[in-house]
Amino acid sequence: MFQKDTRNAMSAKVYAQQIAFAPFVFQSSRALRNFGILNIIEDSGELGITAKDIHSRTKLSEYSVRVLLEAGLGIGLLTIDDGKYILTRTGYFILHDKMTIANMDFTHDVCYKGLFDLDKSLMSGKPEGLKVFGDWKTIYEALAHLPEHVRTSWFAFDHYYSSDSFPVVLEHVFKSKPKKILDIGGNTGKWALQCFSHSPTVIMGIADLPGQLNVAKQTIATNGFTNRAEFFEVDLLDEKCPLPTGFDVIWMSQFLDCFSEDEIVSILKRCYAALPDNGQVIILEPLWDKQTYEVSAFCLQMTSLYFTAMANGNSQMYHSELFTGLIRKAGFTFIERIDRIGICHSMMKCSK
Amino acid sequence: MFQKDTRNAMSAKVYAQQIAFAPFVFQSSRALRNFGILNIIEDSGELGITAKDIHSRTKLSEYSVRVLLEAGLGIGLLTIDDGKYILTRTGYFILHDKMTIANMDFTHDVCYKGLFDLDKSLMSGKPEGLKVFGDWKTIYEALAHLPEHVRTSWFAFDHYYSSDSFPVVLEHVFKSKPKKILDIGGNTGKWALQCFSHSPTVIMGIADLPGQLNVAKQTIATNGFTNRAEFFEVDLLDEKCPLPTGFDVIWMSQFLDCFSEDEIVSILKRCYAALPDNGQVIILEPLWDKQTYEVSAFCLQMTSLYFTAMANGNSQMYHSELFTGLIRKAGFTFIERIDRIGICHSMMKCSK
Repeated sequence: MFQKDTRNAMSAKVYAQQIAFAPFVFQSSRALRNFGILNIIEDSGELGITAKDIHSRTKLSEYSVRVLLEAGLGIGLLTIDDGKYILTRTGYFILHDKMTIANMDFTHDVCYKGLFDLDKSLMSGKPEGLKVFGDWKTIYEALAHLPEHVRTSWFAFDHYYSSDSFPVVLEHVFKSKPKKILDIGGNTGKWALQCFSHSPTVIMGIADLPGQLNVAKQTIATNGFTNRAEFFEVDLLDEKCPLPTGFDVIWMSQFLDCFSEDEIVSILKRCYAALPDNGQVIILEPLWDKQTYEVSAFCLQMTSLYFTAMANGNSQMYHSELFTGLIRKAGFTFIERIDRIGICHSMMKCSK
Repeated sequence: MFQKDTRNAMSAKVYAQQIAFAPFVFQSSRALRNFGILNIIEDSGELGITAKDIHSRTKLSEYSVRVLLEAGLGIGLLTIDDGKYILTRTGYFILHDKMTIANMDFTHDVCYKGLFDLDKSLMSGKPEGLKVFGDWKTIYEALAHLPEHVRTSWFAFDHYYSSDSFPVVLEHVFKSKPKKILDIGGNTGKWALQCFSHSPTVIMGIADLPGQLNVAKQTIATNGFTNRAEFFEVDLLDEKCPLPTGFDVIWMSQFLDCFSEDEIVSILKRCYAALPDNGQVIILEPLWDKQTYEVSAFCLQMTSLYFTAMANGNSQMYHSELFTGLIRKAGFTFIERIDRIGICHSMMKCSK
């Protein structure tokens, strides 16, 4: 993966301009989508539609419609034939593809402004971009307090990548017939609900920061599972904060990528200490080098920069070799790794 | 141009993710360039260089170098072979191509933050993005007061596209042996200097806003041509502001794209009124549909959005048909249009 330079000099020079104007490409594509222009053009099918007719169906000026349409040509969202605009395949994906929509909204609502200071974050090791939302150390503290549309885009992005994986991994997690599972970084309680439905008896422990824990508590109460749930307020960045004991399996989904190498080792050591002999830690994580397609790796590599600029300044979507090394450093023995789960996940099962 | 959808479904889906993450692509490419990482990798040639060795030659943390390198793979600025990073052709252009550098610095320094509100500008017809620099109606008023690095990037971008054209068009302008030429939107006085050097007798009039006029005055004084120059403070947005008479030729380079359709007609009508019979207006302008390559058109289409978001909210890089219509509407007769001048210009010679 990523071994070959696939562009000749001519196409590389073109592509360099697309990079140099990338924020224009992004914002105008988004405007073409949000103002309904891509929809209008799609409705016109293969016959296409003139700029004048498009304008008459929007609330924008002729000028605004025109600069957007012309940008859409250059970006490749539209073609033009005899004065009529037609949607391209790329335009179709900008309009309808769930992954593209989740990525685009997340990029604009959560990351765009903060990415301006990416260089500062790279120098300081802190999420300098987060300042656009207020004075927080990490985005996890901030999450419950962010503007509603920002939270919505954040969760849509987060859940898009994980939701498909949950049904697939349930059987792997319950193979060892655990009675009690601790979910670290329980987030909205989505995974716990899946486990409650899968097993009639399992007890779920959820450990998270107070803000997220409250959300999980409510979700689980609404679904009537409170009597099978235990909640633990933990700040895993505090090395002295131990994990609760008495669980057979510790589960972590898209969680460790939120931490630096040293922090990951520290968290896993505490898992090791909390688990009984032969207890398991099961980790669901997107590993960028274990993707089938380079484009999935690309999405993860870009997401790493979200961690740099916005989340905590020192974590990322990891390469499998680096990640495996950290698990071993904490004392665990690798049982198995299964790649290609859901959209982009690998499941790593490790034993004490 | 722009008639064919060149991407199949698979490559369109990949490209849609590049668009959705475009601000990440932009900022990380810029960081790879600015922190010297692309240079370090280029120096290593075809043998390549490990992440560890790259890190040892920068002031960044191992983490920061790693997330940037991994982003560079996904973006296609780098390849990796046996753990060693190698620069791609695209990486080379990001590093060395003057056009790419001018576009990238302009995008970041002048446009990035303001583009966040592109949708607002499209709705209001005002350059809402300009608010990031202060309370100005247009960027032309603001220009002399912008932070130094922003001004530098603005002028580098502006001059990059025009400078190559000037020597080529001199012979066309002087064909009719004009004694006095009025340069509207004289900017830094660059064109006037070219004319002074080309002709030992020509008198140049420069008409512009006070801020730019002062810069032109100084440049011309420094070069010792003050006795052949006349200066006119004009605000061409004021329809009642006439143009000075007594000039054989009125010259405008990359100027009318700064105005809306109605404003262009109004300015050209005042040129018509100020010129003697058979007087000429010569317009140098990038027309996006008259480019040899789609990539040049793309650069102009993106630049249109700079006018929307940052400059004045209602102008753009025009299509030849629309532009020609405006010239005729003002009363002028087309003498000739010469395309493919310099990097991207067309010269339009029109007669009263």
